[in-house]
Order: sequence, then C-alpha cells, then structure tokens
Amino acid sequence: DEHEAEGSGETWLPSLMTETPQEGFALAVTLSQKGVGITQPDAEVRKAKRSEYAENPDSLIAVSHVIATHFQTVAAANDYWRE
Amino acid sequence: DEHEAEGSGETWLPSLMTETPQEGFALAVTLSQKGVGITQPDAEVRKAKRSEYAENPDSLIAVSHVIATHFQTVAAANDYWRE
Amino acid sequence: DEHEAEGSGETWLPSLMTETPQEGFALAVTLSQKGVGITQPDAEVRKAKRSEYAENPDSLIAVSHVIATHFQTVAAANDYWRE
Amino acid sequence: DEHEAEGSGETWLPSLMTETPQEGFALAVTLSQKGVGITQPDAEVRKAKRSEYAENPDSLIAVSHVIATHFQTVAAANDYWRE
Amino acid sequence: DEHEAEGSGETWLPSLMTETPQEGFALAVTLSQKGVGITQPDAEVRKAKRSEYAENPDSLIAVSHVIATHFQTVAAANDYWRE
Amino acid sequence: DEHEAEGSGETWLPSLMTETPQEGFALAVTLSQKGVGITQPDAEVRKAKRSEYAENPDSLIAVSHVIATHFQTVAAANDYWRE
Repeated sequence: DEHEAEGSGETWLPSLMTETPQEGFALAVTLSQKGVGITQPDAEVRKAKRSEYAENPDSLIAVSHVIATHFQTVAAANDYWRE
Repeated sequence: DEHEAEGSGETWLPSLMTETPQEGFALAVTLSQKGVGITQPDAEVRKAKRSEYAENPDSLIAVSHVIATHFQTVAAANDYWRE
Repeated sequence: DEHEAEGSGETWLPSLMTETPQEGFALAVTLSQKGVGITQPDAEVRKAKRSEYAENPDSLIAVSHVIATHFQTVAAANDYWRE
Repeated sequence: DEHEAEGSGETWLPSLMTETPQEGFALAVTLSQKGVGITQPDAEVRKAKRSEYAENPDSLIAVSHVIATHFQTVAAANDYWRE
Repeated sequence: DEHEAEGSGETWLPSLMTETPQEGFALAVTLSQKGVGITQPDAEVRKAKRSEYAENPDSLIAVSHVIATHFQTVAAANDYWRE
Repeated sequence: DEHEAEGSGETWLPSLMTETPQEGFALAVTLSQKGVGITQPDAEVRKAKRSEYAENPDSLIAVSHVIATHFQTVAAANDYWRE
C-alpha cells in the first residue's frame, strides 16, 4: 500500500523502541513487509499477489515466521518490556 | 476464531511475562496465530483453510517452527522461569 | 500418541530445567511435537500422517530444524549445563 | 547489479556499525544479497532470475526471512541503537 | 548407521563442551542427525532415503541449515572457544 | 571443490575469530558449505548439482539463509568486531 522510498532519504525506522509489546509486534510486521517491499518495490504487483498468498496457508505460515524472527529482535531491543 | 482487531485499540498483548513455562508456550502459540491473522484477517477464510493445512504434515511442522521461534522470545523474556 | 489436553489444566511443561543435555534434547523433541499437536489435536490423524512424513526426507529434516530451535531455548535455560 | 569481487581484496563490509536502525536494515539487505551473490556470482544470471522470483510471493517472503536473520545480527551489533 | 536407542538409558550427549570449534561442528552434525533419527528410528529406512536426498540440493541446503542452528547452540555453550 | 576429509584429522576450523566482519562473512560461507559437504562428501556430485541450484532462485535464497545463520554465530564470537 505505502510508497516504497528505499533510495530516498525518507525515514521509516527511527527506532526499535516501542511503548508496549503489542506495538513491538506491529513493528515486527512492518519490518517483515519492508523486507518484501525492497525486492518487489512495485506496490501494485505486491497488492495483486497478496490476494494469492493470503489464501495459501503455507505462505501465511511463512509470513508468520518472518514476523516471529523480527519480533525476537524488537523484543530484545526493548529488554522484553520488563518493568 | 477470534475477531482480528489490528487497526483498533484493542489490547491483546499486554505483556510477555507469564507465570509458568506452559503459559509461555500458550502465548507463543497465540503470537504465531496472530502473525497469520494479520495477513489474512478474515476468520472465515482462515477457518476454511485450517481443515486443509491441519492434515498436511509439512504445514503442521512449519507451524511448530513458528511457535518455537516465538517461544524463544517468550522464554528469554521470562528469564526461562528460573527460580 | 498422548492425549492432547490443551484446554484442560493438565501440566505438561512444569520447567525448562533438566539434569543433563540429553534430557534437554528430549524436552526439545516434546516441545516440537506439542507445537504440532496444538494445530492438529486428533492423535489418530497425527498417527496416520506420521507414517507418511516419516518416510519423507524433507519432512524429517524440517522436524529436526524445529527440534534444533527448541534445543537452543532449553540449552540457554540450563546455561548449557556448564559445570 | 554490483560486481561480485569475492576473491579480490575489495572491502564491502568494513563494519556492522550503522548510525541508525534504518541504515542497519539496509545493511541486512546487502548481507542477504551478498549471500546469494556468492553462490551465483554472475550478475547477469541474477538479474534474469530476479524478474522471476520478484513476482513469486513465496520467494519474496523467503528473502524477507533472510533479511530478518541478518537484521538480528546487525541490531545486536549496534546494541539496538539504544540511546 | 548407528543404532537409535531413544528409549533406553544409553548416553549419547553427555555434554555440549568440546575442545575445539571443529569438534563443536561435528557435535552439531550429530545433533542434527539425532533430530531425524527420533522421528524415523529405522536405520534401514534412513539409509535408503539418504541416497535420495543426498543428491537433492534443496535437501542438502536444509540439512546445512539445521546444522547451523545447532552450531549456534554449541558455540554459545563453549563461549565461542575464545581464549 | 575442496577435498572433504571429515573422518581424517585435518583441521579446517581452528577458530571462529576473524580480523574483520568481511572475513567473518567468508567463514560463514565456509561453514555453510561444510554442512552440505558432510551429507554429500562426493565433490563431483556437489559440482554437478551446483550448476543446477545456482540457477534456482529459491535455492540461492535458502543458501543465503544458512549463511545468515552462521554469520550470527561468527559475529557473536567476534563480539561484532566492536572497537
């Protein structure tokens, strides 16, 4: 959906710190999508493919795995939001 | 099954802390399902596909891998429930 | 084989601590199987599929990968059984 | 695109340190591409294949997973850009 | 090749400590094979399948990934054999 | 290409320490190849297969993932080459 501005100076990742675990999970989702957007920068192509893989269980599980990997990083960065 | 309310302000992940390892494992399962629900927010579609991949060993193993990845995060967050 | 009692109060994971690395590996195997059992709680279906994937090298390698991921967690929890 | 000079003395990875998380993510992308370039050093072949896998959702997700793995390393190296 | 004696009291993993990184890598290979042997305990079946997947590049790469995951554990256990 | 001498006493991994991140990445590549060589020790077979998977984007991405996993280990061993 969003415009991929890899080459530009646009800031999309100012920090790995989040207020809550839930925001951290949302950031992991963003990082996972960004990893796809860098290889396929055309948002139209991504959108067209989305309807395809969103109905493929194995693709959904694979996306969930990428999110899990990024969530490890974000959670460690935030010291697991321990109080 | 549950209603995916990504965009809303609903809190589903208040903390990574759990009382026991077993509750931590259950949280890892929740995180793994959430990663799928974000890409396919339609619970009906997910339910329809579930009967499909739940009989596919490779899909089941892949789900187990995602859970394992999240369990690493939850276990570290809880300092492995060491006493 | 075992009865999956996810919803019940049955305790199957009281601790990540084990006496030896070998017991830790066995726990990693249990965690890996639990991740499958949660998505496919019907032990009969799992048993039927087992004969299928147990002869598929790629499935066996994938199972070994999940065990490896859980073993990382269990080993860290036990401080690698250093003396 | 770039010329792969594995055997030569050319320096392409002087450090894992970056100023910002976003530059760290860009470095993770570079590392991920380098891992491909080492096995297939012919930039023409890579370019030809790119149009193929850039339209394959599962390939895009797999690339995103490799980036996530490298981002873990780069983020840890930079102590998560904590202030 | 070796006899899988999961149920018995035979010790095959007394420690994660090794003298050298190279022995640690060999242990990672053993752990990776053990993960396969637990799901397919019949050594004859494993041997028959081996000639199959040993000529399949994707299977070989997947085995290498499992070894890499275990090597992370073994290397951390040995504090990376730092002097 | 190189002769696989697993059974022999030949030393191929004396240390995980490297002078630079780039040498560390090269070591990660070596470790990744070694993981393949152990399962398929016949260099001729590996060479024959190489031309096959080197043109398969998904295989190249999978190789890159294994390298990324080993690079995590090597980078941690070297304390990320922090100065």
